[in-house]
Amino acid sequence: MKQVPIGVSARHIHLSEEHIELLFGKGYQLKVLKDLSQPGQYAAEETVAVVGPKGKFEKVRILGPARGGTQLEVSRTDAFSLGLNPPVRESGNTDGTPGIQLIGPAGEVTIPQGVIIAARHIHFHTDDAAKWGIIDKQLLTVKIEGERSLIFEQVLARVSDQYSLDMHIDTDEANAAGAKTGDIALILS
Amino acid sequence: MKQVPIGVSARHIHLSEEHIELLFGKGYQLKVLKDLSQPGQYAAEETVAVVGPKGKFEKVRILGPARGGTQLEVSRTDAFSLGLNPPVRESGNTDGTPGIQLIGPAGEVTIPQGVIIAARHIHFHTDDAAKWGIIDKQLLTVKIEGERSLIFEQVLARVSDQYSLDMHIDTDEANAAGAKTGDIALILS
Repeated sequence: MKQVPIGVSARHIHLSEEHIELLFGKGYQLKVLKDLSQPGQYAAEETVAVVGPKGKFEKVRILGPARGGTQLEVSRTDAFSLGLNPPVRESGNTDGTPGIQLIGPAGEVTIPQGVIIAARHIHFHTDDAAKWGIIDKQLLTVKIEGERSLIFEQVLARVSDQYSLDMHIDTDEANAAGAKTGDIALILS
Repeated sequence: MKQVPIGVSARHIHLSEEHIELLFGKGYQLKVLKDLSQPGQYAAEETVAVVGPKGKFEKVRILGPARGGTQLEVSRTDAFSLGLNPPVRESGNTDGTPGIQLIGPAGEVTIPQGVIIAARHIHFHTDDAAKWGIIDKQLLTVKIEGERSLIFEQVLARVSDQYSLDMHIDTDEANAAGAKTGDIALILS
């Protein structure tokens, strides 16, 4: 049995160094609120407001550390609230995606692109992947059991010795499956 | 191929005659905004506000005609916003479910129970069910294809000569599957 813990991703944002400075001030450093399951990644104490054509979210959690490109990850439910129609994308692949306005305590910026619905994926440490015969970028079929039992196809495997075993789904997927962080998913094939 | 059109249910409420009168006034009759896929059912012009411990929705669509018992159907995402933890239930089965405050133009009422997350189900006309060998209350496995392809297990079959073929899922399920009303689901078994 290939059992994987589930991590549910609520809406969040990754910021570039440049955008951290525009939103929070010159030389600003994010403060760590809580470490995440993937080594080195953390939820920051800071939040930003995001403003779309139809709605806004006042407090979107920043995940650190800073990245090369700013990226807002929302559920499809969130996207409807904002009035955007972002594609389902792998993290980092933001070409041609919608932009959005970001507001911080020290300034604001409108990014021309960067809003995505994150494609569901499983992080595997190299050792876990080798043990189960799974390779990087393989597409898996994964089941979440329960009264709203769901089978997810096309779940992307991401393998690295920097990763810790975790299946990342968004709040729509978690709620549709009746699942929460810490629940267990089963890789079927 | 057993193909079924999908109908996505956004949050909505069914009201008893008594609650229509409390919220809209003595003898009030709902006005038909739009007929729904199931014969005799309609979206009313009227909405009510619903107020939970943590949040409210200003305009929740009323579906008519009046029913024996008042029932608010929300997604799990909605339930978190309201601050409630309703169970996944078949329509009409509201024993032990959370209550909520309802506010209309002529009055308000707090129902002691009636908030549910509707269990996904397929309405079959008797003829469709017979053709496919499906019986009332059978649990089916159903696939929605696409880039967020999902297989739903334990989908309840509801068979009646009053029904029209339609798979009802909520907005969490639709968004998790990347589906919208009018898309097609496949019954696998």
